[in-house]
Amino acid sequence: MGEVEVPSSAYYGAQTVRAIRNFSISGLPISQLSQLINALALVKKAAVLANAKLGDISDSKARVIAAACDDIAAGKLSAEFPIDVFQGGAGTSTNMNMNEVIANRALEHLGLPRGRYDVLHPNDDVNLSQSTNDVYPTAIRLAILLAHRSLDQELRLIADEFDRKGTEFASVVKLGRTQLQDAVPMTLGQEFSAFGTTIREDVARLEELVSLFKEVNLGGTAIGTGINTKSGYADIVVAELSRLTQLPLIVANNLIEACWDTGAFVLFSGMLKRTATKLSKISNDLRLLSSGPRGGLAEINLPALQPGSSIMPGKVNPVIPEVVNQVAFQVIGADLTVTMAAEAGQLQLNVMEPVIAFSILHSMALLANAARVFREKCIIGITANVERCREHLEASTALVTALTPLIGYERASEVAKATLKSGERIWKVLQTELHLPSEVIEQLRDPTTLTKPWKAQELRVSTGVSGDQLNDSASAQAT
Amino acid sequence: MGEVEVPSSAYYGAQTVRAIRNFSISGLPISQLSQLINALALVKKAAVLANAKLGDISDSKARVIAAACDDIAAGKLSAEFPIDVFQGGAGTSTNMNMNEVIANRALEHLGLPRGRYDVLHPNDDVNLSQSTNDVYPTAIRLAILLAHRSLDQELRLIADEFDRKGTEFASVVKLGRTQLQDAVPMTLGQEFSAFGTTIREDVARLEELVSLFKEVNLGGTAIGTGINTKSGYADIVVAELSRLTQLPLIVANNLIEACWDTGAFVLFSGMLKRTATKLSKISNDLRLLSSGPRGGLAEINLPALQPGSSIMPGKVNPVIPEVVNQVAFQVIGADLTVTMAAEAGQLQLNVMEPVIAFSILHSMALLANAARVFREKCIIGITANVERCREHLEASTALVTALTPLIGYERASEVAKATLKSGERIWKVLQTELHLPSEVIEQLRDPTTLTKPWKAQELRVSTGVSGDQLNDSASAQAT
Amino acid sequence: MGEVEVPSSAYYGAQTVRAIRNFSISGLPISQLSQLINALALVKKAAVLANAKLGDISDSKARVIAAACDDIAAGKLSAEFPIDVFQGGAGTSTNMNMNEVIANRALEHLGLPRGRYDVLHPNDDVNLSQSTNDVYPTAIRLAILLAHRSLDQELRLIADEFDRKGTEFASVVKLGRTQLQDAVPMTLGQEFSAFGTTIREDVARLEELVSLFKEVNLGGTAIGTGINTKSGYADIVVAELSRLTQLPLIVANNLIEACWDTGAFVLFSGMLKRTATKLSKISNDLRLLSSGPRGGLAEINLPALQPGSSIMPGKVNPVIPEVVNQVAFQVIGADLTVTMAAEAGQLQLNVMEPVIAFSILHSMALLANAARVFREKCIIGITANVERCREHLEASTALVTALTPLIGYERASEVAKATLKSGERIWKVLQTELHLPSEVIEQLRDPTTLTKPWKAQELRVSTGVSGDQLNDSASAQAT
Amino acid sequence: MGEVEVPSSAYYGAQTVRAIRNFSISGLPISQLSQLINALALVKKAAVLANAKLGDISDSKARVIAAACDDIAAGKLSAEFPIDVFQGGAGTSTNMNMNEVIANRALEHLGLPRGRYDVLHPNDDVNLSQSTNDVYPTAIRLAILLAHRSLDQELRLIADEFDRKGTEFASVVKLGRTQLQDAVPMTLGQEFSAFGTTIREDVARLEELVSLFKEVNLGGTAIGTGINTKSGYADIVVAELSRLTQLPLIVANNLIEACWDTGAFVLFSGMLKRTATKLSKISNDLRLLSSGPRGGLAEINLPALQPGSSIMPGKVNPVIPEVVNQVAFQVIGADLTVTMAAEAGQLQLNVMEPVIAFSILHSMALLANAARVFREKCIIGITANVERCREHLEASTALVTALTPLIGYERASEVAKATLKSGERIWKVLQTELHLPSEVIEQLRDPTTLTKPWKAQELRVSTGVSGDQLNDSASAQAT
Repeated sequence: MGEVEVPSSAYYGAQTVRAIRNFSISGLPISQLSQLINALALVKKAAVLANAKLGDISDSKARVIAAACDDIAAGKLSAEFPIDVFQGGAGTSTNMNMNEVIANRALEHLGLPRGRYDVLHPNDDVNLSQSTNDVYPTAIRLAILLAHRSLDQELRLIADEFDRKGTEFASVVKLGRTQLQDAVPMTLGQEFSAFGTTIREDVARLEELVSLFKEVNLGGTAIGTGINTKSGYADIVVAELSRLTQLPLIVANNLIEACWDTGAFVLFSGMLKRTATKLSKISNDLRLLSSGPRGGLAEINLPALQPGSSIMPGKVNPVIPEVVNQVAFQVIGADLTVTMAAEAGQLQLNVMEPVIAFSILHSMALLANAARVFREKCIIGITANVERCREHLEASTALVTALTPLIGYERASEVAKATLKSGERIWKVLQTELHLPSEVIEQLRDPTTLTKPWKAQELRVSTGVSGDQLNDSASAQAT
Repeated sequence: MGEVEVPSSAYYGAQTVRAIRNFSISGLPISQLSQLINALALVKKAAVLANAKLGDISDSKARVIAAACDDIAAGKLSAEFPIDVFQGGAGTSTNMNMNEVIANRALEHLGLPRGRYDVLHPNDDVNLSQSTNDVYPTAIRLAILLAHRSLDQELRLIADEFDRKGTEFASVVKLGRTQLQDAVPMTLGQEFSAFGTTIREDVARLEELVSLFKEVNLGGTAIGTGINTKSGYADIVVAELSRLTQLPLIVANNLIEACWDTGAFVLFSGMLKRTATKLSKISNDLRLLSSGPRGGLAEINLPALQPGSSIMPGKVNPVIPEVVNQVAFQVIGADLTVTMAAEAGQLQLNVMEPVIAFSILHSMALLANAARVFREKCIIGITANVERCREHLEASTALVTALTPLIGYERASEVAKATLKSGERIWKVLQTELHLPSEVIEQLRDPTTLTKPWKAQELRVSTGVSGDQLNDSASAQAT
Repeated sequence: MGEVEVPSSAYYGAQTVRAIRNFSISGLPISQLSQLINALALVKKAAVLANAKLGDISDSKARVIAAACDDIAAGKLSAEFPIDVFQGGAGTSTNMNMNEVIANRALEHLGLPRGRYDVLHPNDDVNLSQSTNDVYPTAIRLAILLAHRSLDQELRLIADEFDRKGTEFASVVKLGRTQLQDAVPMTLGQEFSAFGTTIREDVARLEELVSLFKEVNLGGTAIGTGINTKSGYADIVVAELSRLTQLPLIVANNLIEACWDTGAFVLFSGMLKRTATKLSKISNDLRLLSSGPRGGLAEINLPALQPGSSIMPGKVNPVIPEVVNQVAFQVIGADLTVTMAAEAGQLQLNVMEPVIAFSILHSMALLANAARVFREKCIIGITANVERCREHLEASTALVTALTPLIGYERASEVAKATLKSGERIWKVLQTELHLPSEVIEQLRDPTTLTKPWKAQELRVSTGVSGDQLNDSASAQAT
Repeated sequence: MGEVEVPSSAYYGAQTVRAIRNFSISGLPISQLSQLINALALVKKAAVLANAKLGDISDSKARVIAAACDDIAAGKLSAEFPIDVFQGGAGTSTNMNMNEVIANRALEHLGLPRGRYDVLHPNDDVNLSQSTNDVYPTAIRLAILLAHRSLDQELRLIADEFDRKGTEFASVVKLGRTQLQDAVPMTLGQEFSAFGTTIREDVARLEELVSLFKEVNLGGTAIGTGINTKSGYADIVVAELSRLTQLPLIVANNLIEACWDTGAFVLFSGMLKRTATKLSKISNDLRLLSSGPRGGLAEINLPALQPGSSIMPGKVNPVIPEVVNQVAFQVIGADLTVTMAAEAGQLQLNVMEPVIAFSILHSMALLANAARVFREKCIIGITANVERCREHLEASTALVTALTPLIGYERASEVAKATLKSGERIWKVLQTELHLPSEVIEQLRDPTTLTKPWKAQELRVSTGVSGDQLNDSASAQAT
């Protein structure tokens, strides 16, 4: 395959240089996927510890290899992983890169110059009992488990903030809308609490689904048969990795299947897509509710962050929800990439795992950042236009729905249509047309009444007539 | 492969029965893709005419085969194509089904009982000089060309209707919005004309792209080498097909490539996706503009078609735009199906063509129907709330943008913010703060001024001061 | 909205006729989604029972309404649901259709003519305490729970069949492949068992995720506030529905959120997509392994089901895996439709639920059918070409990997390359070049050795030399 | 909006700093989209030249603004564009960033310190007659036109290389395959030429579709009405931009529509997706044809670039086609992002354009790089295994198809099946069973015969019997 020149300062070696040359695709180095690099270093450390335990490597070699892994996992050598994130070979280049850096760093710890592979060899020593096909998928799983921590935290924080807003706006009564049409009363607090609830559900689902990655195929080597490992190695190496990561990892039941299966990636990516759709939906709602300031709904105000237009002075735009939308579209697109990569697996391996790893880790980082920015720059500072909220409700015919149990759907429809046509307020119409006593109307307009389970029969009428009598009265008027 | 029983009344034969049994997947028979059946019958007719011309089949056989093809193309035997639209075999089952029906129908024309394949054989006679791999892709292309006619017509009609609304609403001045925020003045007519323009562009693009299907691989037989055809057959059969369909079809330049290439499907499907996104965007706009009636923008009214709620009396929903949105999502999903099917082609054939054909033809039908329903049930009946439109504009600070060339971006920003804060009308502020003469303000509020290219320097000031002088005056006030 | 004419034989009424006219889109009636119709009838029955319990409806009305619901859930009136599956209005038309059919059927049970809504009204009685916005999403969830049963069963059956094949082929030793390149030994049984494992994992995941649908928003009515229900109604109606369906349904914690949230649909659809990618991957593998018969891998034979070509006699194609691929692409496309529909939710409702319901239920049916056809028509009949499997293994250099722990990666690479270049068999080279004793080679060629965890040190050498000594010997030769 | 601190060395100003803070999302700065930055600088230059021509800006200001634009377009200030590619605001931040850098650079050219906006203002001078909403979309279009050049070149080069291989392998006869099953004869040259043809078709389509971007909305300003421009400005500025870019740009017919329309992006992205599917299909074919070396098809060899496995010595993998596949999946995913962003446009603007620009420009770069790497590292070095190719063909029953016109489909099927069952070579069976003269068999085995249009009637029989007589003879034997 020809000679290659390795920079004298590099810890990596010839295989890495070959891979750099072969994959000049995106310009994004794998070092940017820091969780993946860290995770792979930990996998390598677990392997050498297991090998030492089984007597397959000398303690002196094991010690320096483990030390080199620690260095990498601590981020000390991140510049040594320059291969493109887009790479063929099912991660072999990344694994070879890691083997070379570990070997040379370990040689350094031994006081020897780089390249003395006769003493400590990237494949024979560092990669002992391993194949790219088990260490790489294991490292991706581990990297996702690590990346999940910050995504989880950001989603919890934003859910908390939505809940806080829910409490803050608990008494702001407003018009609920379905299909963008005036519907029935609710509170702005209910609207924001729902955002909190929906994100919190995703926190729970992500936690459940990320735990699928705790099952790894480490020990299966090339195709899952465990060739070139001693019997028992798989259990030992996974126990070591669990100890190192403080995660309860387990060996997959069927290592042949686990070697090629990418189902957990597809499902988890699908879950990220779900979170993306929710964040996008919330962004759409906030943009809609804050539309205006004069020609829109204008029920809430988003914080003003930057001038919104180069031509229109004073314009302020909902730039944060807008960027959240775009992140959502990116994550949804990435899920398709993952899906196609998963479907392309063949026989004993899925060779497309590098793009799966990149897509999922990138999406997780984008979602975590978007959630943080969304919370810090937008949600926290949202204020309510209380008057506007009430005005929309009062202007609508929302109250008429509450009277349906009394006067029937068809009569209620007529009342609503007549009100809209006349331009009148509904409560006035209820007064003049249905002769509802003003105390009844007051109850209907009371925010504590119609924003929770409630039925017209519960109307309190001071004169002592029951809801049913009122029904008869209203119905009589309706004829 | 075992015996099979064929219903005595059927024109189809054993191969069709096998395929029915093998593909009990969706319950949707290929007969529902009527354009595909018609197109395949025409391809078969062209083939038999070409064979006759080359002396490869007797005139008597050719005559009855052609007659049978005519019967099918006229829709007389549509119940005879019962195989599922989801089928393996790259269309072989559909082709075999067609061969059998033609053979038996032709035998009937000869006065012979069905199944006398010793006289006229589905493969040796009907399929002569053909392979599924050239007739089936050719038929799909032809079917799309046929289906394009009604889609084209419906898109033209809806574009016309949008243009008509554009004219109708030409004098309704309103607030233009970017990012859901108040921007600058425009007319409702401009808004609707833009819908017409955007659909008309799709009409043009679809016409260009559908013409890619005029290049066919007919004559290439099994893999494009033309095995089992006489030299010259390809040109003759395509000329016949052109004559029969009145379409200027041509033989693909490279028949090997044309046998497996599905690029035209991917691109055309991508174009259908584009039309879907446009119809969806327009639907979203119409739903937004008609939101309310009291708590939304309410600048236009969609026709009331059906009660909108089982619980909320008098509610009327934008059900037609909503169904258009859903059709759009379906078409976009189908495009992904087409993409994956195209990517899955292998070596000399793309075996996934049945699902490509189904997806594209289904999407075309859905889009044509959605466009028709959209026009007939929604667009035609849209009315404008002229007062509401003007009110939104007047309430906004849109006019201030027009003054920027005079007073500068930063001063204009201050004016806009102060106006919003105060709750005042912008034209009052311009009068009281900037001391603009009322005749200037009248010009700014005149709809004919700010809804077309215009610059503050064009302000006509009766006292003879120029725009630049006004600039100085306004700037002086601004300090 | 004008007069409409209702067919005299119809149980449905004016609202249904309006919806039929408005939504002439796909030609597929909602009656084809039989689980949805059944589920909605059960929801309606639960509602009337809850209303009766709360004293909101007379026992006589409740009895006939419940009876009508039973009739529909039993499939007796399926022709009465003719509205298109593509519909605007967030399911209102489907709900209205159901209300009308129930009302008229109930009137019939009362011995009264259809249309006597003054006695029993579709909205005031049948729809009492309900909104489309709670009954329709609940019915979709219930329908998916019902549809899951057959999908679950088919996936279990196909997994069983893969396991059975795994056992049948347990002793067929073959070449494992990664990246389509010769890798290391395995058994054909391992290959098929992995298919069983992977599908069984999906059975487990689907079961977990489908249980998300047990949380329903029934009782929330229009926007989740529970307007027009008595306090306590939600718990009672969901308890009734649980009893009727024998499913442990629960009321959603936050009904406002549950009214618009479609997260469970997105996640479940993403899971269906995962199953699709797995079935597609398995299909690809089977098509590859059965490629040939002379110019391909030809390690297995799929059952011959139908002539594979209209032009190439004797050709038999893998038509069943091919149709499974296409179903997978369809399901993946439908997942995108679901995703876009979910993202399009606005404020208090997601109006796109009809296309979500259609997409998911259709995908579930397709997957269940595809799994059944795959099993019955393909998997069951697969046979192994034992000789061919062994021949590929023997011809490869797979054994050399097993020697790496003895002779090192670099020496082993040289041996492998030399072998490939020479055209020799690897075991001969091991004999002649590395002077491995024939008993060692026999062990390496023994299928029970290299298809499970194993390390060269475990080689048994009769002369008493240990693996390590062999290592030295081999290494010496290697120099 | 509070004070912000601008680094003293920066050319950008406060708005840029605000945007950096607001959009800490992906870490990818817009400077990486160099074509977009260059294009926007050119648009700005065209604007200032147009303004000067119309007398709206002094020549002295125009001169330094133009000079600053030149500096940026030449790449001198690329570090000055640090805002994230993911950004809200429809590109306003990018435009503001550009305005500030130009202003400060121009001030420098005037010998003044940065920030002297009283002399030369980012909005009032640099942004004169412009809005983000017309300059940004115009710049994206221009950037795509620029990026197209290298993609076009790379696709042409790889098509050339495929053609060259087509010529090189013109005489390598082999087995054509459909559905992965043995089909009929072809040459390896035909297989590679088809790759050339298919890419060349994409070159043509991309060229056609990229020309859609020559229509720009420059001059439409905020929403397409052209507010704050002098009548005639649009034509002048676009003419200037055409002159500067040497591209025949035109003003969109309907500027209102052109302001929000993203159809050209959707269609062009769909076309990139098509190219991706083709490159992926070709990669799949090459991986399949080079599978082996001993247990696969092994008809061609890909260049060995790097060791293929960390555990399996001597293994060489098709790493380049594999990375091309992954790039294809990425591009297809990005197309979905574009689609969703396009669908999300609202009213007078599509605010999601930043992610559209990023997705398309990124995909174009990835495709160009992938095509280059594919060609340089893989295609150029492919060699044929001539013997293996012939062996697969000879072993198959491909010849029997060619005899169908003589002996009929059913008899031919029997012959093929018998041959496969017996393990014999087909030409031997033809000799022994059908008594075909050896000269006939020689013709059939001659590669020049069956890899082009040909029919059994063209067989040359020295004894003077015609093809038809041979037919009779063969048929007689067949009975």
